[in-house]
Amino acid sequence: MSKRVSFLGMGIMGRAMAPHILEAGYELTVYNRNAEKTREIASKGAHVAATPEDAAKSGDVLICMLTGPEALEDVVFGERGLSGADLQGKIIVNMSSVAPAYNLQLASRLEESGAAFVEAPVSGSKKPAEEGNLVILAGGGDKVLEELEPLFLTMGKKVIRCGPVGRGAMMKMAINILLGTFIEGLAEMLNFGEKGGLSRDKLLDVVLAGPLSCDLFRMKEEMLRNEEYPVQFPLKHMAKDLKFAVDTAFENGSTMPTAHTIMQFYRRAVELGFGDDDFTAVGEALR
Amino acid sequence: MSKRVSFLGMGIMGRAMAPHILEAGYELTVYNRNAEKTREIASKGAHVAATPEDAAKSGDVLICMLTGPEALEDVVFGERGLSGADLQGKIIVNMSSVAPAYNLQLASRLEESGAAFVEAPVSGSKKPAEEGNLVILAGGGDKVLEELEPLFLTMGKKVIRCGPVGRGAMMKMAINILLGTFIEGLAEMLNFGEKGGLSRDKLLDVVLAGPLSCDLFRMKEEMLRNEEYPVQFPLKHMAKDLKFAVDTAFENGSTMPTAHTIMQFYRRAVELGFGDDDFTAVGEALR
Amino acid sequence: MSKRVSFLGMGIMGRAMAPHILEAGYELTVYNRNAEKTREIASKGAHVAATPEDAAKSGDVLICMLTGPEALEDVVFGERGLSGADLQGKIIVNMSSVAPAYNLQLASRLEESGAAFVEAPVSGSKKPAEEGNLVILAGGGDKVLEELEPLFLTMGKKVIRCGPVGRGAMMKMAINILLGTFIEGLAEMLNFGEKGGLSRDKLLDVVLAGPLSCDLFRMKEEMLRNEEYPVQFPLKHMAKDLKFAVDTAFENGSTMPTAHTIMQFYRRAVELGFGDDDFTAVGEALR
Amino acid sequence: MSKRVSFLGMGIMGRAMAPHILEAGYELTVYNRNAEKTREIASKGAHVAATPEDAAKSGDVLICMLTGPEALEDVVFGERGLSGADLQGKIIVNMSSVAPAYNLQLASRLEESGAAFVEAPVSGSKKPAEEGNLVILAGGGDKVLEELEPLFLTMGKKVIRCGPVGRGAMMKMAINILLGTFIEGLAEMLNFGEKGGLSRDKLLDVVLAGPLSCDLFRMKEEMLRNEEYPVQFPLKHMAKDLKFAVDTAFENGSTMPTAHTIMQFYRRAVELGFGDDDFTAVGEALR
Repeated sequence: MSKRVSFLGMGIMGRAMAPHILEAGYELTVYNRNAEKTREIASKGAHVAATPEDAAKSGDVLICMLTGPEALEDVVFGERGLSGADLQGKIIVNMSSVAPAYNLQLASRLEESGAAFVEAPVSGSKKPAEEGNLVILAGGGDKVLEELEPLFLTMGKKVIRCGPVGRGAMMKMAINILLGTFIEGLAEMLNFGEKGGLSRDKLLDVVLAGPLSCDLFRMKEEMLRNEEYPVQFPLKHMAKDLKFAVDTAFENGSTMPTAHTIMQFYRRAVELGFGDDDFTAVGEALR
Repeated sequence: MSKRVSFLGMGIMGRAMAPHILEAGYELTVYNRNAEKTREIASKGAHVAATPEDAAKSGDVLICMLTGPEALEDVVFGERGLSGADLQGKIIVNMSSVAPAYNLQLASRLEESGAAFVEAPVSGSKKPAEEGNLVILAGGGDKVLEELEPLFLTMGKKVIRCGPVGRGAMMKMAINILLGTFIEGLAEMLNFGEKGGLSRDKLLDVVLAGPLSCDLFRMKEEMLRNEEYPVQFPLKHMAKDLKFAVDTAFENGSTMPTAHTIMQFYRRAVELGFGDDDFTAVGEALR
Repeated sequence: MSKRVSFLGMGIMGRAMAPHILEAGYELTVYNRNAEKTREIASKGAHVAATPEDAAKSGDVLICMLTGPEALEDVVFGERGLSGADLQGKIIVNMSSVAPAYNLQLASRLEESGAAFVEAPVSGSKKPAEEGNLVILAGGGDKVLEELEPLFLTMGKKVIRCGPVGRGAMMKMAINILLGTFIEGLAEMLNFGEKGGLSRDKLLDVVLAGPLSCDLFRMKEEMLRNEEYPVQFPLKHMAKDLKFAVDTAFENGSTMPTAHTIMQFYRRAVELGFGDDDFTAVGEALR
Repeated sequence: MSKRVSFLGMGIMGRAMAPHILEAGYELTVYNRNAEKTREIASKGAHVAATPEDAAKSGDVLICMLTGPEALEDVVFGERGLSGADLQGKIIVNMSSVAPAYNLQLASRLEESGAAFVEAPVSGSKKPAEEGNLVILAGGGDKVLEELEPLFLTMGKKVIRCGPVGRGAMMKMAINILLGTFIEGLAEMLNFGEKGGLSRDKLLDVVLAGPLSCDLFRMKEEMLRNEEYPVQFPLKHMAKDLKFAVDTAFENGSTMPTAHTIMQFYRRAVELGFGDDDFTAVGEALR
């Protein structure tokens, strides 16, 4: 496979992921709307493209890691966007978290361009990204996913092929539901225990020592002990993701009582002013 | 501390825990209503007492690991029960899972006997018990807990001193809420993902590879993949434990929306005939 | 049937109900712990008994309309209680709102006395009581209920024979669930409409003009318009009644998602300080 | 005001409403896609228009009572639609149940035409429509609503002016939430009571005799007694309306725990095959 990769989007995640590609020996071009954020990776040897179109020209695999549909529309179809370049034979990899339907739409809108389209949202946030330990939730054709495997494994420890385009995004949504459930469940348990005379620290000690301990809780441990929630994944985004999940459940007829319940509390926490904190702050809505 | 320990209750947990005491060099006496279940540990060197009263005479620390208040009433206060012996200076350790109020009541009813009372329910089930990896949730006086620490550490990897009697049981209840939440959350997520075209196996692969992976899920992995639920912790007990937790929440005024929601679904699963399966079967109530 | 009736309990309800019995030509004796509250009815011609025992002697039908089990224990089985008198051939009618199990227990504890026991909680509060418009939810033997019918119809416009003792209380509990649901549902709808730019007054106008209009809403209209909630039926009692209902549902396996949801919000409203307001105040917990 | 009215949509509601306009002395033109349904009203003296455009020409007030946005798009903006006619000075009244946002959009799209736009969804279904007893939830400018009042009062007993366009639809949505809550609450209460040994008929007797009795329950009484649910308002529409309401609540930040809970059960009832029954069938999802 070609060793020319372009990476569009140098946000928290992009800046953590792109260096692994470079280190693995790929020729890397990066693009970010605010060029400031490309400096560090440039200093390590990446080219910086002035426009998405230029980035498209410099790479054979074009990775997008952006905040959502709005940014994607801009970068892919906007002025001097990816689609301005000749995409014939290239592979577009959308690693951004979006709805299954939107990835399907992207795939179909890009069909005529001659590019292959693949989705690859990730499970894991900043820290696993920095360590190259993401889990990559790939959706797309088998052959192209096969081809991308080594590239994906520079950024992640595992690639799960979820099926055709749409299934990767579906998987991501399913994971998010569980993420939200773990944190809300823990918040209720802490609140309940405290009302019962136990200290927050001891409650956390027991959880972290037993069969419910998981990396998520270890990552959030400090927040939970200090009851301060510097943002990693904003609570308002969790509320929106959960809303989207229950909307999907309404469509496909799945029974999701817990997901509905927690969604309401994340939403309530937004109302109470915690939307820009980390989603771990949801417990504050229970007081 | 005295090395004479009596262990009352050779159920699944008792049989897994007691051998560690023996191996650590304590002089161990065991009692079980059905003597059949004492054979294996007897073959390793434990004495077998014919009655709880006899067990009380042979030990200085008397551990109860029984199914609940009914069995405890029988073993402690029944004919030829523990309380028939002279308990002056002995330590009674209730490791059974019961309500905080019941342990407080036990403590007060045993006060005159001259025995010290301690509660020590555990986090972890059969496998951690076999491996000596339980987390012990101790409630009682500091001095006596200090004294018991080495004994506890034969059975567990960690002892959390939760406070006075009652707090250990409270901790256990808090943990159970989270246990129930994890499994219900996972069940909803699997159900949702399957309706969205993903395979149960891939969904589990992703969960087990990422930040939500935990020993609980690894223990239940086989059940979840096979959709068969041979009992480890019966679903009907989880339903009852959760009911008890929300009752407690009603009393102490904690807001527990998720706990109420999942309690209803465990109860519903009992109604649908899954009460004697492992509590992992709760997902069947969502279909 | 005998025309000698004793009425024990001159609370809000008792004082509203007893005059109808007097007006219908019965010979009425009343009892209340605080004798102050018997004055008005005495001035209309009722006898006042100094103790429940005396009341029992002066009547052949002994009606209890008390706040709950505690008061009943006192009045029926306490010192100088009903049961101190010779009850042979008398009829004891418990109109207080209590659990089915408690009425069954009363019936069995009174069996030896030779008195017949009947339960007759009511649907309707102060105003229907004053107007003689209660609905009487009778549980007991057919013959004795037949006999009591004319007496009941002095206080109520309708008698529903619910079955044996216990069923009347069950019916009352079922009605309370719906009562709580109507008010919580209305509260949510008002809150939702106000957030959507509609005035509380217009929302109420529409509800009261259409197919959802009911006496309950008309009785609470003023409270809802003024957002002030002088107590008629205390919110904390509604919380407790709903808790009792979901406990019963847990036992008998009924699925009651709405009842669980609203119970939590009434409980939350207690926590927020509205326990002594009318239960119509529950909407304040949604803000 | 002009006496020339056109009524578009001769569905269940339209056929029940239009005759009142005729009887009040207005000159009435009707339109329906399937002309069959215009026969009866034609026989009473109404003109029948072949197209919406023709209907627009024959009336000064143009009433739409259609199934939803799709039908409205067709009738208003489709080929030979209303907007093909000169609408200058006319009043368009949308009585169909649609989202507030859609009515706002209609208003703005019709602005250039010179027609005034008013929304007027109704509270009440077939029977109140036949009796001229609807409650009309009007949204629009004060002057035009003033002018329409006599026309509205031919069809309804009460007109509530809810505010500018959008507020009428908002009011309708609020009413629907309560409608859904009443029926789900009653269903749970019946189910609960039956499990407790009471008969469905007695439970309904008590509800219908007391302060919770309302026209809605009287209209559904027969269904509830027979447990057969011939459609008046399809359950699947209630599920969709409630989903739309909770979506709106998510946007505007209202806390609606009960609405979320009942929405899930209506949705579940659809999944279980009751979507085309009357929404009163929701209780079947609780079994």
